[in-house]
Amino acid sequence: MRVLGVDPGLTRCGLGVVDGGLGRSVTCVAVDVVRTSADTELAARLLRISDAVEHWLDVHRPEAVAVERVFSQHNVRTVMGTAQAGGVVALNAARRGLPVVFHTPSEVKAAVTGSGRADKAQVTGMVTRVLKLESQPKPADAADALALAICHLWREPMRERLAEAEAKAAQVARAHKAKLAAAAKDRDAAAKDKEARRTGNGTNSGRDTRR
Amino acid sequence: MRVLGVDPGLTRCGLGVVDGGLGRSVTCVAVDVVRTSADTELAARLLRISDAVEHWLDVHRPEAVAVERVFSQHNVRTVMGTAQAGGVVALNAARRGLPVVFHTPSEVKAAVTGSGRADKAQVTGMVTRVLKLESQPKPADAADALALAICHLWREPMRERLAEAEAKAAQVARAHKAKLAAAAKDRDAAAKDKEARRTGNGTNSGRDTRR
Repeated sequence: MRVLGVDPGLTRCGLGVVDGGLGRSVTCVAVDVVRTSADTELAARLLRISDAVEHWLDVHRPEAVAVERVFSQHNVRTVMGTAQAGGVVALNAARRGLPVVFHTPSEVKAAVTGSGRADKAQVTGMVTRVLKLESQPKPADAADALALAICHLWREPMRERLAEAEAKAAQVARAHKAKLAAAAKDRDAAAKDKEARRTGNGTNSGRDTRR
Repeated sequence: MRVLGVDPGLTRCGLGVVDGGLGRSVTCVAVDVVRTSADTELAARLLRISDAVEHWLDVHRPEAVAVERVFSQHNVRTVMGTAQAGGVVALNAARRGLPVVFHTPSEVKAAVTGSGRADKAQVTGMVTRVLKLESQPKPADAADALALAICHLWREPMRERLAEAEAKAAQVARAHKAKLAAAAKDRDAAAKDKEARRTGNGTNSGRDTRR
């Protein structure tokens, strides 16, 4: 399976393509950072990023796209730009029918280093080791994009299995609920029947008194 | 001039097309709200919004697109979705070479009602009056999209004039600065000349004493 990881951003957008699978060795296919200038208009910056992503999808043909899920942290302005860039990337992938999954930074850190609180250096170090790179990918956005792709490769099969298990559990629960409802209905019907017979006797006795 | 106003959002994305210009009457060409379900995946929701916007650009052929500039307010989750949807809309417009301008909610309110603190009802009321609509556009997202388009029609010529004036002022300032610099250089050269002559005299007088 081939995954494109994207660390979205207007100033620097990290792109990393990784090949591999659960229990298989993982290799780096390509990594780069797209930069746009803060002097450029927002729409033009988004277009530049979109064009670069389209090009990567054309050239590397990934089967899935993993994007960092943004949270509103420190700088609101930066976060908005990041969300806008992430939206554009998701759109590009969706247009080609590719699955797009958003992973949070802590999911990525946990998947790659084993700790959701790992720092940038630890993530870059593990990415370098896992992909057997000769030098550390730079800047951090490039390493983050690769980490996202690795996270997706490793987490997605488990996520799918979990989703299957949850769907099965939900089905069992539905069947059980339906059985309970049917049993309750039977019980109600039996109770009504009994009541009808009882009140039927009562009416009869009423009639009896009027007669 | 024809403007497409967009109140971006994942659950409800307001779209409104308006014709008009500064000092001319303004008419409503089309207004609608695109809805996507929260059960749908984010990428699919963005694709649905993008398709709708593309369709509107095809059908109504606006010359500019006005999008609401989002701020991180109350609900972080909603704001992220809004930013992502806004990014997608800006990309669609940029792909066609259309100018995209982001207006803040208070700019829109001020342009349409005269007060940046107007409430939803006031904005809807003014939009209905300005566009001479028989009934109020509903839901609020539809009215907001029309308000954005009207704001753009009314603000943009002033913004352009302001930008021109600022550019001119900057040019004048540059010319003035250059003149000042040239004058300072002249002054410096004159001073140096004088100094050279003075120290020249000094040396001469030194020589005089040595002789």
